Amino acid sequence: MLDMVEQKKLKKSEAGEELTTMQTKLIDLANAVKAAKIPVIITIDGWAAAGKGSQIAKLIKYMDPRFYNVEPIRIPNEQEKRKPWMHRYWMKLPKQGEFLILDGSWFSDTVKSYMHGSIDKDGYKRRIRDINTFERQLRDDGYLIIKLFLHITQKEQKKRLDGLASDEFTRWRVDAHDFENNKHYDKIFRRYEKTLAPTNTEAAPWHIIPANDKFTAQFEIMRIVTESIEGACAAKEKGTLYKMPQEFPAAQPESDDTVLVKRKKLAEIDMNKSLTEEQYRRRLKKYQDRLFELQNICYQRKIPVIVAYEGWDAGGKGGNIKRVASALDPRGYEVKPIAAPEPSELARHYLWRFWTRLENDGHFTIFDRTWYGRVMVEPIEKITPQERANMAYREINEFERWLTDWGAVVIKFWINIDKDEQYRRFKERENTPSKQWKITDEDWRNREKWDEYEKAVDRMIKLTSTDIAPWTVIEGNDKKYARIKALKTICERIEERLGL
Amino acid sequence: MLDMVEQKKLKKSEAGEELTTMQTKLIDLANAVKAAKIPVIITIDGWAAAGKGSQIAKLIKYMDPRFYNVEPIRIPNEQEKRKPWMHRYWMKLPKQGEFLILDGSWFSDTVKSYMHGSIDKDGYKRRIRDINTFERQLRDDGYLIIKLFLHITQKEQKKRLDGLASDEFTRWRVDAHDFENNKHYDKIFRRYEKTLAPTNTEAAPWHIIPANDKFTAQFEIMRIVTESIEGACAAKEKGTLYKMPQEFPAAQPESDDTVLVKRKKLAEIDMNKSLTEEQYRRRLKKYQDRLFELQNICYQRKIPVIVAYEGWDAGGKGGNIKRVASALDPRGYEVKPIAAPEPSELARHYLWRFWTRLENDGHFTIFDRTWYGRVMVEPIEKITPQERANMAYREINEFERWLTDWGAVVIKFWINIDKDEQYRRFKERENTPSKQWKITDEDWRNREKWDEYEKAVDRMIKLTSTDIAPWTVIEGNDKKYARIKALKTICERIEERLGL
Repeated sequence: MLDMVEQKKLKKSEAGEELTTMQTKLIDLANAVKAAKIPVIITIDGWAAAGKGSQIAKLIKYMDPRFYNVEPIRIPNEQEKRKPWMHRYWMKLPKQGEFLILDGSWFSDTVKSYMHGSIDKDGYKRRIRDINTFERQLRDDGYLIIKLFLHITQKEQKKRLDGLASDEFTRWRVDAHDFENNKHYDKIFRRYEKTLAPTNTEAAPWHIIPANDKFTAQFEIMRIVTESIEGACAAKEKGTLYKMPQEFPAAQPESDDTVLVKRKKLAEIDMNKSLTEEQYRRRLKKYQDRLFELQNICYQRKIPVIVAYEGWDAGGKGGNIKRVASALDPRGYEVKPIAAPEPSELARHYLWRFWTRLENDGHFTIFDRTWYGRVMVEPIEKITPQERANMAYREINEFERWLTDWGAVVIKFWINIDKDEQYRRFKERENTPSKQWKITDEDWRNREKWDEYEKAVDRMIKLTSTDIAPWTVIEGNDKKYARIKALKTICERIEERLGL
Repeated sequence: MLDMVEQKKLKKSEAGEELTTMQTKLIDLANAVKAAKIPVIITIDGWAAAGKGSQIAKLIKYMDPRFYNVEPIRIPNEQEKRKPWMHRYWMKLPKQGEFLILDGSWFSDTVKSYMHGSIDKDGYKRRIRDINTFERQLRDDGYLIIKLFLHITQKEQKKRLDGLASDEFTRWRVDAHDFENNKHYDKIFRRYEKTLAPTNTEAAPWHIIPANDKFTAQFEIMRIVTESIEGACAAKEKGTLYKMPQEFPAAQPESDDTVLVKRKKLAEIDMNKSLTEEQYRRRLKKYQDRLFELQNICYQRKIPVIVAYEGWDAGGKGGNIKRVASALDPRGYEVKPIAAPEPSELARHYLWRFWTRLENDGHFTIFDRTWYGRVMVEPIEKITPQERANMAYREINEFERWLTDWGAVVIKFWINIDKDEQYRRFKERENTPSKQWKITDEDWRNREKWDEYEKAVDRMIKLTSTDIAPWTVIEGNDKKYARIKALKTICERIEERLGL
């Protein structure tokens, strides 16, 4: 793509007026973005010394600083290295109506990591796939992504580096490494080309900016930014900004290498499993001791473990989680109860609030309810349209793929009880003073929709039971049996991951 | 305090039943804490190998893992080092009704930092003061802090270290350093003593646990935890958990070394200041250029800059902030608009949401409205009782002291306009289509309370204009004058800090 770029030079006398018009328009467009609640991400990549910083400064001169945030992308810090590589980009997502402007991005991050040798060829390929997925997921959620690449020639780069190095105020910004890279301009050029091509997608196309001439670069950036925003506002008004799936269910696109694994429907499960008190005691001790040992190994090897609990109301999630938690060294896990999202969470991609809750590698993160609310309670309670929720099967599989690529063991439980057992437990809660806080009218209302929920659960399990993150349905009528099965499954999945 | 402790040994046969009773009671108490919305912090400090981890594990066996969080306190990581030292403790604050259990704390953090030489004697003294302040602020906000110190003898410690080192599963937990420390037990003992004494306060007293015998330690911990929680629940019911100030205003306690600086009342300010367009242009360029240079130096020296904007509605904060922001390298600042707190923010100490918004050292954090809402809008709009709000003058001075101790330049602006000017601007907004979103009924309602607000502002400026963080009142009837004054003040304050 870079070789197609002509390093043109616009004249201020000719284009200056048009630039001023666009700058004025940007002020209105920022208000329109706020009104339309469109979150906007602008990434500025390009050659060292291409003027990324100063172009950002010129761009934001016409924007309200309360509604944008500029973030430089550097080498990941110690903390960031303990999370999936895209975690830091998820963390920075802007709210609806606000701007995130990145100096550098997941693109340059990937190119640099590969050229420095911190990722290998396979890792590089996976990152390209991750970038495509990430950008598509955001676009599908209504994000506008504007990707700019500032292109300068080798000669121009040399000239600028010399300039920076000779000024006492800017000297610290360049080092021997930059000059070395300038000598290897051709090699870097080829790597840029090879990375630009597969990341030039409909969801987030590239805009190559000829940047030898600063005024021309400024003009082109302003043109692309204003045009893109105008386009997005118009699309939002027409209702075409969100990308609805062509067909249902959109769970398994051809590009995915995730394999679905078969699971029984809830109705086919034998719910008569139970344990005696004696069996329970012995196995509880056995698996809790084992889990403690395994946690120790995971901690030392920095393997993250994600345990996701879903299940019927009164299914016994709380008590089950307690038995898992009490086996663990408390400094190495955290339980995350998932309630209704807060305003700042609603203003971002729905997976954001799960990204923010990931513990470091080597730790356990236990979710009490999860991202699967998106395909169960949200469409059933009409919080999210069914068509939008349908897109989540694929997105969730991709999310879990990110987790397993990070090295995580992802364990998902559906705690199943039958309808009679739920009734019994609801009644017991109502009749036990210390348990009354656990039962609300909402529980009874949800119960009325049992069949609808069962259908949604069957579909969820069918479409998101993958080889990397399979569902385990737990027969929960007997709490003892359920607890042992959960503990045993966690142990086995970790052992499998550790190759034990 | 440690020399008073008798290493007693309770018999399981005698005290076992009482322990069980307390454990069962803890389950109910956790529910009571949830109902009473009391946030609880339990810190477990003590000697290496005193059994902190395993005692925590025993304690939480009787608690619901969804409502507690256990955090180990280690050497601060790279990210944490770029924030005030107490920042990481603020970040971890539990919500109302939840438990934070710390393995280690600000206490051991301070002892270790001093003994390792990473802070000097003065730094150590400041930390003692910070700990007292922090604990008092939390207690005054309704937090229950239970501080436990696990005490073992030198001989017992040696025995345990030998034990850990000889087991293949636990070997990684001890190193030569631990054995070295065991040899210098006496020296560490004295340092503990010297640090326990001044941090043994009414707000958060110490509980020294004899821990040579594990069962005894477990019993004592359970006793103190259950008794403390019972006490807090009873106090909350009686309304005595919050500590209201004895007298008003509680701005300047004798222990504070912060000095108030005198400022004019709003009514005394000459509001007729203005600049010509020509003066404005020249000075704008001059101070913006200067600010850019100063930012560069702050970045390299890792000096944080905090700019806090308050002012009348339509005072021109937005445009003023814009002129400051546009002078800066956008990668080095962030503007934080402060709106109403979210549920997760309301569930914690009111300063928490400002701690969470601090940028790294070397960066600018610009607040559009601030923590001063606590003493202005909150009592006036009856969101916070006046008596509680009165406590905030002192707390805010302490907060800003933390910031300046961190190295920050703290600049606070009150943008002042007179009542006629506000009327003119409100009307102009109403009559300009592109500005109508900026004016609401609430603005008109606030205007009716002008006198009440003016009184609150005068008091705020009087009680929180300190030598380390003075207020600058900006004459804002002329926006040009106001912008230049803000820019100039920021430059001067930074120059002063840099010794230029």
